[in-house]
Amino acid sequence: MEEGPIRRKEVAKLAGVSEATVSRVLNGVGPIREETRKRVLEAAEQLNYVPSALAQQFARKKSGNLGVIIPFVPKVHLFSTYYFSEILSGIGVTAKKEGYDMLLMFLSPEEKRNYSRLFRMQKVDACIMLGTQDGEEERQALRELLQEEHPFCLVNQRFEGEAFPTIEADHVSGSYAATAHLIGQGCDRIAFLNGPLTYSNSADRYDGYRRALADNGISVNQDILFTGNYSRKSGYIAAPEIAGAIKDQRIDAVFAANDRMALGLLQGLREHGIEPGRDAALIGYDDSEEARYTDPQLSSVSVPFYEMGAAAVSKLIGQEKPAIIDTETGFNVEKLPVRLIPRASSLRYKPN
Amino acid sequence: MEEGPIRRKEVAKLAGVSEATVSRVLNGVGPIREETRKRVLEAAEQLNYVPSALAQQFARKKSGNLGVIIPFVPKVHLFSTYYFSEILSGIGVTAKKEGYDMLLMFLSPEEKRNYSRLFRMQKVDACIMLGTQDGEEERQALRELLQEEHPFCLVNQRFEGEAFPTIEADHVSGSYAATAHLIGQGCDRIAFLNGPLTYSNSADRYDGYRRALADNGISVNQDILFTGNYSRKSGYIAAPEIAGAIKDQRIDAVFAANDRMALGLLQGLREHGIEPGRDAALIGYDDSEEARYTDPQLSSVSVPFYEMGAAAVSKLIGQEKPAIIDTETGFNVEKLPVRLIPRASSLRYKPN
Repeated sequence: MEEGPIRRKEVAKLAGVSEATVSRVLNGVGPIREETRKRVLEAAEQLNYVPSALAQQFARKKSGNLGVIIPFVPKVHLFSTYYFSEILSGIGVTAKKEGYDMLLMFLSPEEKRNYSRLFRMQKVDACIMLGTQDGEEERQALRELLQEEHPFCLVNQRFEGEAFPTIEADHVSGSYAATAHLIGQGCDRIAFLNGPLTYSNSADRYDGYRRALADNGISVNQDILFTGNYSRKSGYIAAPEIAGAIKDQRIDAVFAANDRMALGLLQGLREHGIEPGRDAALIGYDDSEEARYTDPQLSSVSVPFYEMGAAAVSKLIGQEKPAIIDTETGFNVEKLPVRLIPRASSLRYKPN
Repeated sequence: MEEGPIRRKEVAKLAGVSEATVSRVLNGVGPIREETRKRVLEAAEQLNYVPSALAQQFARKKSGNLGVIIPFVPKVHLFSTYYFSEILSGIGVTAKKEGYDMLLMFLSPEEKRNYSRLFRMQKVDACIMLGTQDGEEERQALRELLQEEHPFCLVNQRFEGEAFPTIEADHVSGSYAATAHLIGQGCDRIAFLNGPLTYSNSADRYDGYRRALADNGISVNQDILFTGNYSRKSGYIAAPEIAGAIKDQRIDAVFAANDRMALGLLQGLREHGIEPGRDAALIGYDDSEEARYTDPQLSSVSVPFYEMGAAAVSKLIGQEKPAIIDTETGFNVEKLPVRLIPRASSLRYKPN
């Protein structure tokens, strides 16, 4: 209604410039003297003239949106999980500082991946992917982005052999530290409750666990390796079997790959007559807020999720093409450090 | 590159229809036989043809985005606060089901409000506002939306005297129940740690508190009314004064307007030699996850934040104009029920 050439003419008249100059200023195209630019903007402001955003976007090829892909899990209150909420906070604050809005797109596991389309449709100027899992379709969709030189970044998931821009944390070291800490407490029958191996995170955790055992002359016992899906419920479900093994003295400690599983396990163990921290040592991973509120307080590994989200935005914004690949490793991965946080659930444990 | 008339011609040829028909189908404009529509979509899919989204948007005047305005508070990890994360989860899941992406826009308290611009620029098709505070600029910006008939909805904030579409919860009843519960435990010197009165929430809580006292023949004692800002820290800061009053037996219970303040207060009281739940009863509000993990477990009032977010989307989607105003009250407000959750922090208290 109030857009188009008629209103533009008024702005041009008020600013004392041509209509073409008004267009150039408002679309940010071509060189303009600062004084002229200021005069046009003031005139536009005064007349409450908003040029059609779509016309602007056509000229600039910019949506002003930073896309964020997150897995759609209807039953989980996703923003209420420590992992996603912290990464999203880091992304949100940094995007805001860079002048971007955040376009959140939920993607069901069964939905077709077509990230490239988001760029071609100009819904986003850059995109961050959270919670991806390794698989051929995912790799294909990401390779297409790389080939078409669209700026994107993965957070906390690495695809071996691919040059995808990635921000992650050093989960091998974190899991090594957690396992070595339990060994230091006198444990030598350390169960491991891991997540699915389609996450590079899970593979890294197993790697750290295995290495710490090996460095201390302990071999991996396949009978005390368990797999959940990072949910609280999956920790709770694993509890009866783990409780039985603790009673039989086949397990004296448990390393859970995240705090949610550790908390479900803690509740389940107690229901099966095992007092976590006294009858067996327990350590989680992520250092979520709940870890501090449980009784006993839960030992964990602190991961800088907020900083990882912020780093992903910084890696993306202002770059036209994906960052250059590390010539040594062949990968484009930045790893942030993690930190062991021992608390009562492992510190109080006294081996027999 | 691969857009425009040349590719469209290929799609038309493969589907055996005219180019105009391809445009009509892909832009969703005009009546088309279902069979024709299907043939065109299959041909487009087969040729991997993505029509320019901006061209589509011009035709449809739809961005496909549901806007969400949230306050920008750089130091707070906003997605990690129970309140926002739950509302956003409810919005996110419902928006996804309705086929919308979620455009999150952070707005600093000092930034100019111009919501109308978001619609004129076609960044959003509808918009939800979280964390707004009462003030003339806010009211003006929202009135403009109402006048221009843009679909929007406020969550958990009511503007008295305005017909803004709003989803909130019955905080008067919730605060009444919390206060009456403390009275039922034998308390009659109930301090109230409220939030700022620019939130209708805070005013409602005071109203419920005041009414419950009045119905039990207790008058409001101004000396034991405190104001924080809903942060954990503000609860902690209030602790020394409240601890002193508990020791002097001028306070035997505290009602905090949210759990975060209650948790800060709980920590602070303990540091000043007061054992919450034993020396004074304590109740929070929101029933956040932490409430279950504290020692003693925190009594609280459960608010259906997730459902409020979901209800806001349902109120918006598919409606061209704001919903009709309630002819009785003159307001367009839906209030969801809340529920008292008594736990050890108030149940264990035994008055002297």
